[in-house]
Amino acid sequence: MRVFKTIGSIRDWSFSIHKELKSIALVPTMGYLHEGHISLVRKAKMSADKVVVSIFVNPTQFAAGEDLERYPSDLQRDLDICKKEGVDAVFNPDKKEIYKRNFQTYVENEHIGQILCGKSRPTHFKGVTTIVSKLFNIVDPDFAVFGQKDAQQAIIIKNMVRDLNFKTKILIEAIMREKDGLAMSSRNKYLSAKQRQSALVLNESVKYAEQQFQSGNKDIVALKSKIEQRINSTKDCRIDYVEFVNGDSLQNNIKKGDKVLLALAVFVGTTRLIDNTILKY
Amino acid sequence: MRVFKTIGSIRDWSFSIHKELKSIALVPTMGYLHEGHISLVRKAKMSADKVVVSIFVNPTQFAAGEDLERYPSDLQRDLDICKKEGVDAVFNPDKKEIYKRNFQTYVENEHIGQILCGKSRPTHFKGVTTIVSKLFNIVDPDFAVFGQKDAQQAIIIKNMVRDLNFKTKILIEAIMREKDGLAMSSRNKYLSAKQRQSALVLNESVKYAEQQFQSGNKDIVALKSKIEQRINSTKDCRIDYVEFVNGDSLQNNIKKGDKVLLALAVFVGTTRLIDNTILKY
Repeated sequence: MRVFKTIGSIRDWSFSIHKELKSIALVPTMGYLHEGHISLVRKAKMSADKVVVSIFVNPTQFAAGEDLERYPSDLQRDLDICKKEGVDAVFNPDKKEIYKRNFQTYVENEHIGQILCGKSRPTHFKGVTTIVSKLFNIVDPDFAVFGQKDAQQAIIIKNMVRDLNFKTKILIEAIMREKDGLAMSSRNKYLSAKQRQSALVLNESVKYAEQQFQSGNKDIVALKSKIEQRINSTKDCRIDYVEFVNGDSLQNNIKKGDKVLLALAVFVGTTRLIDNTILKY
Repeated sequence: MRVFKTIGSIRDWSFSIHKELKSIALVPTMGYLHEGHISLVRKAKMSADKVVVSIFVNPTQFAAGEDLERYPSDLQRDLDICKKEGVDAVFNPDKKEIYKRNFQTYVENEHIGQILCGKSRPTHFKGVTTIVSKLFNIVDPDFAVFGQKDAQQAIIIKNMVRDLNFKTKILIEAIMREKDGLAMSSRNKYLSAKQRQSALVLNESVKYAEQQFQSGNKDIVALKSKIEQRINSTKDCRIDYVEFVNGDSLQNNIKKGDKVLLALAVFVGTTRLIDNTILKY
């Protein structure tokens, strides 16, 4: 497995792969890999000849006061996981390699980047689309794999690819969960044992909505209210948002037959967790 | 010469060129080609195996009330010129091909895109960086050629390439002028015979500054004032800006040995013209 620290070196490698007419799938990560990331890597391996995992804690997607400084990291463990999974190349640049002095050009979704998570984290998606654009230009991947866990991010990236004509095809892999249902996240590490219990309310809310939809109760207003009550009555939990939106547009226009995205963001203590599910209206 | 109307078709062509390990230079234009564009094409031909000229009047770089609707156009003449110059491919998509429904992702310079021309045309450079990003992703050029006439645009594009890690190398070609010194521009067509005379004040201001610098007078404040007086006393002319700035950063920090950009924007009647020169401080 190759480990590249510089833009020039991974670009040369990518060029040599494409010269052999082989395809590349990129899995962009911020490291501290868990089973969720591994499922993305496995999807990447099934889709392309070569797999690149990028490991870079991207400062521009964190706002002041967020957890950039304490974001968990364990590079050696990440590299061991990548090697075991048969990853071909890891791109692990430092911040100065990625954000040069006088950096001033950003990629931004001006529409759906501003709602849901974009409301409580106003600069977050701008940071995401900017770093993903950079990684696409550096690695030149034929495919890139993202997790359904970050549902809004996945849709914003798909929009970016369409709008800016990237050739990269976006693949989305399902949410991976712990045995008790908690969606996997590097941020779960921040939770105390008690908070870890409270955090189950996210997945329970998702399952509750799925069950209700299956049994024919699709009264979104009532379901939203029930879910909010349930979260509000859970210790240490504070709702950021609970929203049922159109699964393609993320807007409130939902009609019969549409995909509906139930998306949740909940602070458990000071840790902000998200979860979601796709329902059929 | 090939003429492509769709993204898919020029992308396939570009891929086939690169498969033969040949290089591509792109000349992005809004059509209505003049000697200035031709000089860009010739630079492109000297730099790469294949030359693509894009002809697309990009709506996102025009603000409401600007001249989008009446921007001059003569496609057949443009194609004849391209053919004569040995251009390999013209990319001439329609607006719907480039801006699909629900377009929402933009590329923006948040720093130097906001000054000089960016002040009087606040969304202009966002439109430019967005369309150029799209063209780079579609055509995948090894080189792209821009004119020094649009000095600020050239610097913003160079910043964009550095910041977003495009592989494309940016080449800048000198300003082409009419016999009497007026910088060539598709917009010169808007000028009446009298305005055409008045418009010479732009190039005269540039030449005046060059002469003064050469003779050792580098008092920027005094020169700026002289130039402003001269323009203000010219019939039909209204200053948008006259600025001496650092030729790399476009900021006001100028020290001995620096490149200085004198940039002018002047309304002649309702037509906004620009001109510039690089001086040594």
